[in-house]
Amino acid sequence: MTTAVACYQAVAADAPLEKGTVERRDLRPDDVRIEIEFAGICHSDIHTVREEWGKITFPMVTGHEIIGRVTEVGSDVTKFTVGERAGVGCLVDSCRECEWCLAGEENNCPNSVGTYNGIDRFDGTPTAGGYSTQIVVSEAFAIHIPESLDAAAATPLLCAGITTYSPLRTWGVKEGSKVAVVGMGGLGHVAVKLAKAMGAEVTVISQTRSKEEDGRRYGATDWIATAEDPDAVKKRRGEFDVILNTVSAPINVRHYLAALRPHGALVMLGLPMDNLEFNAANVILGRKSVTGSNIGGIRETQEMIDFCAEHNVTAEIELINADTINEAYDRVVGSDVKYRFVIDAKTF
Amino acid sequence: MTTAVACYQAVAADAPLEKGTVERRDLRPDDVRIEIEFAGICHSDIHTVREEWGKITFPMVTGHEIIGRVTEVGSDVTKFTVGERAGVGCLVDSCRECEWCLAGEENNCPNSVGTYNGIDRFDGTPTAGGYSTQIVVSEAFAIHIPESLDAAAATPLLCAGITTYSPLRTWGVKEGSKVAVVGMGGLGHVAVKLAKAMGAEVTVISQTRSKEEDGRRYGATDWIATAEDPDAVKKRRGEFDVILNTVSAPINVRHYLAALRPHGALVMLGLPMDNLEFNAANVILGRKSVTGSNIGGIRETQEMIDFCAEHNVTAEIELINADTINEAYDRVVGSDVKYRFVIDAKTF
Repeated sequence: MTTAVACYQAVAADAPLEKGTVERRDLRPDDVRIEIEFAGICHSDIHTVREEWGKITFPMVTGHEIIGRVTEVGSDVTKFTVGERAGVGCLVDSCRECEWCLAGEENNCPNSVGTYNGIDRFDGTPTAGGYSTQIVVSEAFAIHIPESLDAAAATPLLCAGITTYSPLRTWGVKEGSKVAVVGMGGLGHVAVKLAKAMGAEVTVISQTRSKEEDGRRYGATDWIATAEDPDAVKKRRGEFDVILNTVSAPINVRHYLAALRPHGALVMLGLPMDNLEFNAANVILGRKSVTGSNIGGIRETQEMIDFCAEHNVTAEIELINADTINEAYDRVVGSDVKYRFVIDAKTF
Repeated sequence: MTTAVACYQAVAADAPLEKGTVERRDLRPDDVRIEIEFAGICHSDIHTVREEWGKITFPMVTGHEIIGRVTEVGSDVTKFTVGERAGVGCLVDSCRECEWCLAGEENNCPNSVGTYNGIDRFDGTPTAGGYSTQIVVSEAFAIHIPESLDAAAATPLLCAGITTYSPLRTWGVKEGSKVAVVGMGGLGHVAVKLAKAMGAEVTVISQTRSKEEDGRRYGATDWIATAEDPDAVKKRRGEFDVILNTVSAPINVRHYLAALRPHGALVMLGLPMDNLEFNAANVILGRKSVTGSNIGGIRETQEMIDFCAEHNVTAEIELINADTINEAYDRVVGSDVKYRFVIDAKTF
């Protein structure tokens, strides 16, 4: 049995999202039903439904930044009780038995199941994401959201938060680390706040200074405007421990590598179409790395949310009504949002 | 005061090495004088004197794989006594006070001094390497060589050993790790032995099978011959924790990245002229790294030598007389050596 709930869904790559309904399954023993309060809009949602990352099956309900309240729990559920706040991020399932799942790295499981654009392992139905009023998910993939966090502003953390928190932790950011964040968008502004909360000195690398005031308010103490000097990054010779690149524009990898200290890492989060290109000497001297990161596991997502609650870190958001999703999509593509859209699910 | 000692030296980029003499300083309080027994020939020596890596000052005495016996110690020397075996690798000095020196990573010191093609920090004279009968060096940059090691065969470890040991350790190779070594030359054959001694499963990636029998004898349990199938590496999807690339030929980085497991690292030791090229997606999915490594610090060099003594690891060498250095150079360039030339310093 299923329950039809309101949603906004993509019906074709070149058409606006439309209001509709999506079926949510009856609870399995380990499931929780979440009444969605807020759903974030991630640029990935747009790439997916516009088929910029490959063909998809329509209709599709996107959204992998979800916060709401538990309204029903399955018979085996132990982590959640009705009324508690819960979140869902980019994954709703994985094989649960490979070495990566056992290590808490469901994001590396070759059979992980996306919150949307995935296929349920048991009934074969397509998964459907957060642009709706309800979601049913295994408690193993639901995250506790402390009441102290502003729920709307915390919603983007389920993707933008873990996507930046995990590499900052993986590459050892701590008190006194020097971190550069390339791009001050949805990911970048959260990265600045998180790195600052970890005790790092944070520099933003952006084309212009238009967001500099915001960036400094969020914790950056330095700002590089590349439009002012194309060699500005290269001139920061041996300065940064970690550079998180959140943008998808082509980058001069040599310049970024020159700006890293020994053992430093250039971590790609954004996905430029152009190849990355550099000489082996640029990484050999100083043992530097060009690497990348893709979301994070469930355990670390919970750790990230708890860290954000402790350090009072949330995203900067524009809360919108569901009937303006299509305008919001166009504004995301135009980089015209400070800094993340969140849909108020009451307006479905 | 100085002492003139016999050497072979480069006099011009396009001329053979010539027999001559080089001056060795009188001992400073922390110096040891080493009567050289063996000096290895590294491809770097050839690149340097042929000015393939930039202009140099002639004459130059190369050689940064050196083993001999201590014949004299300075007044403050505590690490060595006369008669002990000692080695010298790629570095003879560094600033000794920067964070990298203090961390034992003299190789990352911006003011480190090469065993040749460097300038002494105190008297401003050019440093001169191992193709000679004596060297004078601070005890801080001399390595204890256990008597249990065959000295001639251990000589290449001072460069080829640390160059491969350090990245294997840095990228966490241990019992059960899956390591691929690209190229079975001077570096590669030592890498196979070291990785095997660390407990790894070792695969060699080579153009042909001409050295397969040797490789398996040194510890490899698998062999990929790329000339047989250009896609052979790519087909090893998600198999290796670490790929050490010891060759300087152009490589298909995408194929190597495809062959890495999540968190895997492609470590460049060789220096291809062509740029490395790959898409960000190749490192983002599975959080892989393209990185590199350049020798190692003195503390780790000693650790490597002790590890080799414990596990009975040495290089495979052809011991030559000093008057055949020029032929040996040509054979190194033609990859016609199994697997490292070592000069017998008694023949100077």
